[in-house]
Amino acid sequence: MYYIGIDLGGTNIAVGLVSEDGKILRKAETPTLAKRPYADIVRDMAACIAKLLDEAKLTTQDIAAIGIGIPGIAEQKTGRVIFCTNLGWRNIPLRDELKSYYDLPIFIDNDATVAGWAEYQAGVSRNTSSSVFLTLGTGVGAGIIVDGKIWSGAHGAASELGHLIIEVDGIPCTCGKCGCTERYCSATAIIRMAKEACALHPDCAILKAVNGDVDKITAKTVFDLAKEGDDIANRVFRRYVKYLTIAINNVVSFLDPDMIVLGGGVSRAGDFLLDAVRELLPKYLMYPVLPMPEIALAQLGNDAGIIGAALLGR
Amino acid sequence: MYYIGIDLGGTNIAVGLVSEDGKILRKAETPTLAKRPYADIVRDMAACIAKLLDEAKLTTQDIAAIGIGIPGIAEQKTGRVIFCTNLGWRNIPLRDELKSYYDLPIFIDNDATVAGWAEYQAGVSRNTSSSVFLTLGTGVGAGIIVDGKIWSGAHGAASELGHLIIEVDGIPCTCGKCGCTERYCSATAIIRMAKEACALHPDCAILKAVNGDVDKITAKTVFDLAKEGDDIANRVFRRYVKYLTIAINNVVSFLDPDMIVLGGGVSRAGDFLLDAVRELLPKYLMYPVLPMPEIALAQLGNDAGIIGAALLGR
Repeated sequence: MYYIGIDLGGTNIAVGLVSEDGKILRKAETPTLAKRPYADIVRDMAACIAKLLDEAKLTTQDIAAIGIGIPGIAEQKTGRVIFCTNLGWRNIPLRDELKSYYDLPIFIDNDATVAGWAEYQAGVSRNTSSSVFLTLGTGVGAGIIVDGKIWSGAHGAASELGHLIIEVDGIPCTCGKCGCTERYCSATAIIRMAKEACALHPDCAILKAVNGDVDKITAKTVFDLAKEGDDIANRVFRRYVKYLTIAINNVVSFLDPDMIVLGGGVSRAGDFLLDAVRELLPKYLMYPVLPMPEIALAQLGNDAGIIGAALLGR
Repeated sequence: MYYIGIDLGGTNIAVGLVSEDGKILRKAETPTLAKRPYADIVRDMAACIAKLLDEAKLTTQDIAAIGIGIPGIAEQKTGRVIFCTNLGWRNIPLRDELKSYYDLPIFIDNDATVAGWAEYQAGVSRNTSSSVFLTLGTGVGAGIIVDGKIWSGAHGAASELGHLIIEVDGIPCTCGKCGCTERYCSATAIIRMAKEACALHPDCAILKAVNGDVDKITAKTVFDLAKEGDDIANRVFRRYVKYLTIAINNVVSFLDPDMIVLGGGVSRAGDFLLDAVRELLPKYLMYPVLPMPEIALAQLGNDAGIIGAALLGR
């Protein structure tokens, strides 16, 4: 049997035909055009599935299940999307709509949860029983696996680790609260801290690297300069690592999983980031006598969205 | 069948004979005298059990299991106590030692976890499937129930919710970190904030209530005055409620359980505290469209330690 995984993003819809063992065999993409009525978006999802089946010479009977990762939260029982900011969706009957094209088991979950599930099923955390996946991108999302199962919460609102408060009355967050983890541990946070450094040090290497245009600063700008040993970039990097380690401490003190997986754009800094976190973490652990949870980099990259969605039904 | 529950504290050891449905039938107590060798402490536990069995005219065959709640962490597999600050224990073979007196199934877990388990098995959270129990006392402990099971973490170090950081570089904590939840949400935190208020307002009602002796201030001093409408006490109370609501936000954003249970000395403030938290919480929720997790007061009080330990084996 095969699985269909759909990674529904604000810009693109990526659809993949996935094997039982979590390999993407074929992919199709279509622009989301998020402002359209949801029915149009679902029709294009269905068209992508049709295309993949056609190309692979498969029929609906060869497909065990369809899974969809959404940038929001869904109600498992009804398959409705409760909330999806980027798409402006509220209470959308996504499962029923797609079922009108394909009468198959359809599973829907949050995109970070789905990526964490992919790493657990076919990636770096596949030999663990509990793991927390942190996606460090524009925001901070997470996926929680407990006892080999996804934990989405009693109301579907769990694993919003970007919105744990780590600074009372801290930086205002897009969610309406202040001091959320996301404001300190996202790529956006690195850029903000770099801009602050540039304002203080107008002759710094960060500003030179972007020809004086602060709006061109990315997390990579900072990390690349930090790797080269630039002092200002290193200070921004170390400040970021401190915040990230605090976020990781909060995961360990709360859930103490076998493994914490770092994914998302920031994690592309690779061992440079991982080594720095691993070095700082022991200072933040309650029980130095206990084995430390493993901290690892995600293995599946962008494919995690499709793979994890596909394997929701496995 | 009956169960034996042991609540091992730094001052007293409380042992109870517990029925299948979580009622304490008989109790025995003995001082811990924490500085003794652990073998002496376990011998006195066994003596308490013998006394209870004798009084109830029962034998070992009537007992299904023994459970022990400890102020520390234990390794489930081996029944060893890894770490127990109050007793100065490191790597103590508690299960094996007690088994030399009573060859029964023996379960050991953290005292806050055990209290949370009691509330889940026989108290306020008995009709939920997931819950987080917060004990607000000298420190802040927690017990996590996920999918009807205790979650102690991959290494036994989970549910240390008192040590999630909510203030980067905040107040130094006994654990070595800074800004831990415990420093803002414990009874100790209320007393600290009250002392700060007394220093600023030497004619305040808090100071009058303790005849000018700041060392006599308790959480109850503050809450009682706040209830009576005293302005300074109310400010301390509202500040505490804000921190506690932030801690609760962090539980919701992480785990989104069916219910959050407030226990420990501070929770004796009852509805006065509960109503204030319930009023503030919506401001801290990510998804106002979703049902709010239930916030409730613990029902079993001090008995939760014995009941929860006893029912570890159920």
